[in-house]
Amino acid sequence: MPAEPATGRETVRPGRRRGPTETRPLILKAARELFAEKGFDGVSLRAIARAAGVDPALVHHFFDGKEALFVEAMEFPIDPALLLPRILGGPREEIGERLVRVFLGVWSHPEMRPRLVAIVRSAATSERGAAMLREFMTTALVGRVADALEVPRLHITAAAGQMIGLVMMRYVIGIEPLVNASDEEIVALVGPTIQRYLG
Amino acid sequence: MPAEPATGRETVRPGRRRGPTETRPLILKAARELFAEKGFDGVSLRAIARAAGVDPALVHHFFDGKEALFVEAMEFPIDPALLLPRILGGPREEIGERLVRVFLGVWSHPEMRPRLVAIVRSAATSERGAAMLREFMTTALVGRVADALEVPRLHITAAAGQMIGLVMMRYVIGIEPLVNASDEEIVALVGPTIQRYLG
Repeated sequence: MPAEPATGRETVRPGRRRGPTETRPLILKAARELFAEKGFDGVSLRAIARAAGVDPALVHHFFDGKEALFVEAMEFPIDPALLLPRILGGPREEIGERLVRVFLGVWSHPEMRPRLVAIVRSAATSERGAAMLREFMTTALVGRVADALEVPRLHITAAAGQMIGLVMMRYVIGIEPLVNASDEEIVALVGPTIQRYLG
Repeated sequence: MPAEPATGRETVRPGRRRGPTETRPLILKAARELFAEKGFDGVSLRAIARAAGVDPALVHHFFDGKEALFVEAMEFPIDPALLLPRILGGPREEIGERLVRVFLGVWSHPEMRPRLVAIVRSAATSERGAAMLREFMTTALVGRVADALEVPRLHITAAAGQMIGLVMMRYVIGIEPLVNASDEEIVALVGPTIQRYLG
């Protein structure tokens, strides 16, 4: 941020030392750029600290590890570490229904939906947006679900494709009768698909 | 197109009467704008002719009906009127496999793919792009498939969602192992999903 010209009106001006309100966004910005460029595995917290020009201890102070930093850098409105247990827990024979229901619940939230649409849009249009979502899905979703359920990763990507395509059709393109169908109609229709991939 | 200043070099200059190379794009441009604004059903060939400033007979001369004009205005690289019979014909119990195989075949074509990706991108980012794809899917796909197969439209949109999401994951976001899976692996995995929706 370039310094504003002094107007003579300020009584106190901060010096060059950065406060927390400045440091945190600096770290997030550096993280966003490095993750998009090098992928999740190719970036260390130390490298992010260096790019942000801050002490590595500060990165640890503000963020609870690399994945938490990644999720926040993605501006993903929900932490999958909190969401996935709700899907992965419970009877395995109902995982398809459960996943579709939880997923649609998140998308129907009026504050979440615009942010989720923004993520899909950005992935569809910019290579950086695609890289971020690719990293996010690979790291926070595909790997974790594969470990928990012991199903092939290809199955998980097919399930993720069904869910992403569903919200594209319902919320981005807006095709009837999907727009006006109830969540439970969609759960009944698409749940068995996800069950087949993940059950 | 603004007239170029005369340089004195031309021996023949066309008058104000438009030749076919000028009329056709004018009609397409008007069609694109009207379809995006009012949807397929809300636009007549006569209204397109009026917006383009040409005689309605010329629209009929250049385009084989409203749907053909729509498909061309969409710049969709394949006419679904040609593609759908390959999917809808043949044994009903294999329609899922057949759809996935034909669809992936089109996407794997090196000249088609960038144009298809462009359509998905434009639908994800601009309201006009979304409106065009929405109209296209509703008119050229959902309605036609519903008539041919007598399955509920909601099933068709779920199938379309699976296929759009699959290509988003494979070609736009680029998630492994979907990127490097063979077409036949994907047919075996996703074919039964489509079969369940459309069979």
